[in-house]
Amino acid sequence: MPPWITDLPPLAYHNLGAYLAGAAQWVELALPHYLPDREPRAYLYALARDYPARGGKRFRPALLLLCAALAGGDPRRAVPSAAALELFQNFALVHDDIEDDSLLRRGQPTLHRQHGIPLALNAGDLLFALVHEALLDNDALLGAEPALRVRRQFAEVFRQTFEGQAMDIGWIHDDHLPDREAFQAMIRRKTGWYSGRGPCQLGALIAGADDALVAALGDYGEALGIGFQLRDDLLNLTADSADSAPGVLSGGYGKERGGDIAEGKRTLIVIEALERLRGPERERFAAILVRPPAQTAPADIAWAIERAEATGALAAVRARCAELGAQARAVLAAVPASPQRALLEELADYLVLERAA
Amino acid sequence: MPPWITDLPPLAYHNLGAYLAGAAQWVELALPHYLPDREPRAYLYALARDYPARGGKRFRPALLLLCAALAGGDPRRAVPSAAALELFQNFALVHDDIEDDSLLRRGQPTLHRQHGIPLALNAGDLLFALVHEALLDNDALLGAEPALRVRRQFAEVFRQTFEGQAMDIGWIHDDHLPDREAFQAMIRRKTGWYSGRGPCQLGALIAGADDALVAALGDYGEALGIGFQLRDDLLNLTADSADSAPGVLSGGYGKERGGDIAEGKRTLIVIEALERLRGPERERFAAILVRPPAQTAPADIAWAIERAEATGALAAVRARCAELGAQARAVLAAVPASPQRALLEELADYLVLERAA
Repeated sequence: MPPWITDLPPLAYHNLGAYLAGAAQWVELALPHYLPDREPRAYLYALARDYPARGGKRFRPALLLLCAALAGGDPRRAVPSAAALELFQNFALVHDDIEDDSLLRRGQPTLHRQHGIPLALNAGDLLFALVHEALLDNDALLGAEPALRVRRQFAEVFRQTFEGQAMDIGWIHDDHLPDREAFQAMIRRKTGWYSGRGPCQLGALIAGADDALVAALGDYGEALGIGFQLRDDLLNLTADSADSAPGVLSGGYGKERGGDIAEGKRTLIVIEALERLRGPERERFAAILVRPPAQTAPADIAWAIERAEATGALAAVRARCAELGAQARAVLAAVPASPQRALLEELADYLVLERAA
Repeated sequence: MPPWITDLPPLAYHNLGAYLAGAAQWVELALPHYLPDREPRAYLYALARDYPARGGKRFRPALLLLCAALAGGDPRRAVPSAAALELFQNFALVHDDIEDDSLLRRGQPTLHRQHGIPLALNAGDLLFALVHEALLDNDALLGAEPALRVRRQFAEVFRQTFEGQAMDIGWIHDDHLPDREAFQAMIRRKTGWYSGRGPCQLGALIAGADDALVAALGDYGEALGIGFQLRDDLLNLTADSADSAPGVLSGGYGKERGGDIAEGKRTLIVIEALERLRGPERERFAAILVRPPAQTAPADIAWAIERAEATGALAAVRARCAELGAQARAVLAAVPASPQRALLEELADYLVLERAA
């Protein structure tokens, strides 16, 4: 094990906040080993290091490390994979921002708005390439067979993510509003796999868990990941960035209230609202979504949010959020009790107990 | 070994054309195994399969397979790596076309011109992700240790490519014309590694070659790759796409004569010309390069080509091309004679004997 991994401070499992802070610190100490500050700096490495330096909760690697510890593994052996996941996350944010032409990321101009699309796109490609370098350390740390299982899982996470992303941006491209089934297929890939199932199963695989535990933690992760996405979606419509904690998965990039409506983001809220609206109201709601953001008036957004509330669409999503939390918690009943399981339960309860907004 | 690899027709080494055709066929038979036709089709897989279906010489995988055979390996064991290299190549073309906002690729509209930047960018990301899937087959085919060495080499190829690409597009972004040293650093990464050293060293590593042979074939590949790039650059200025064979590395995307000048591409021709021009002529030449392509008149391009010829810049690049060919051939003197070595020599002689233009 490289000395810098051996020297990482121990993780604390007695308290969720302390654990998440410790895991985030590990990720921040690991990243420079795979994302060095080197030449060509001005055109590449400074750009690639920008988003990781803007902070973030490092939620996905934290989940990976926690599941590795829960399954009886040494989380230190999961550090290269946690770093790989964070590199992938930052790569995805850079390309996502180009695809959505977003203006801000964590309160600062997006990378392509600062440096133009060509350099930002290429810096994103480097971040994805460096995933390969991080995973190279797994062979020595885990042994050849487990390292191969982990790589297989990463390949699956990547494929599912781009499949989900293709649906999401394809619908925007075609002004298409998906039905519930298509939406589920998208969110299971883009959010379920990428933000939940992938990280949890990777942690379990690194610890050498049996298939049943890998699958259970995967089911837990999928429910949790989708649940937190729904919670972020609810927060976007019901809280101003100024007066709310940033979303867990969005990382709090400080969107204005209802920004998702202006951007026409396909969320479960939209699916639920469209199913409840009829005639001209449905048409107006759909038109607001497909209209370019710059042409969407604040009054349109306020009206859409009011309709989502009044028709019970928001309540349905709140209920779904709680249901996913309960589902995630129920999966854990089959997992032996441990401090790590208690933290996973606490995360799931967050979705059940909290009334978002 | 998977049956579909065992069943590939044998490669012929008696003749360069026959060998290249056979290797290209292998790549085309291998690609569908790693790039299937599946859902989501309209938003993702059809896009990702578009460029590979437009053809191409599959020059880099052919080089990889040839070096594997030369080093005494079974080229069939190199098929997943050859496919990975071709996936990477097509990923790079998709993102390159976005970065340069190119209009045409092999005579058809570029992917982002057909589907918009978001979907094209994401389809490129999938192609790069599928490299992971192709490389998964190496563990079973090569054994854990050689598979790890191959992955390490791929990671190096990726990093070098994005570093070189960052310089190239950064200079365009900043209207900067590099000096000779900076240009060498760029082309060694972007072309030397990606199109030559990488493929050749990968083939040698797959065959289990010793360090000396890996390095020799790498040196050969770097000289060959850069040489063919110079040849493509010369062809762009001296031949119309209508009346010339397509470039080996450019894959013949049918640019107009002098398109590189209009695009302001930083080539060795530009470096040589700028070193030879003085005063207002140098200023005019530089201005033509940094001007947006749409504002570059045919007369400007004709003037720039005439100056490059008259000052001896083109002759210097032709000489450098021949020198690289001779250098590549000289490296092979240390390699035992074989039908494969003869084909590599023939490729190198192409640069020495042919008077491009």
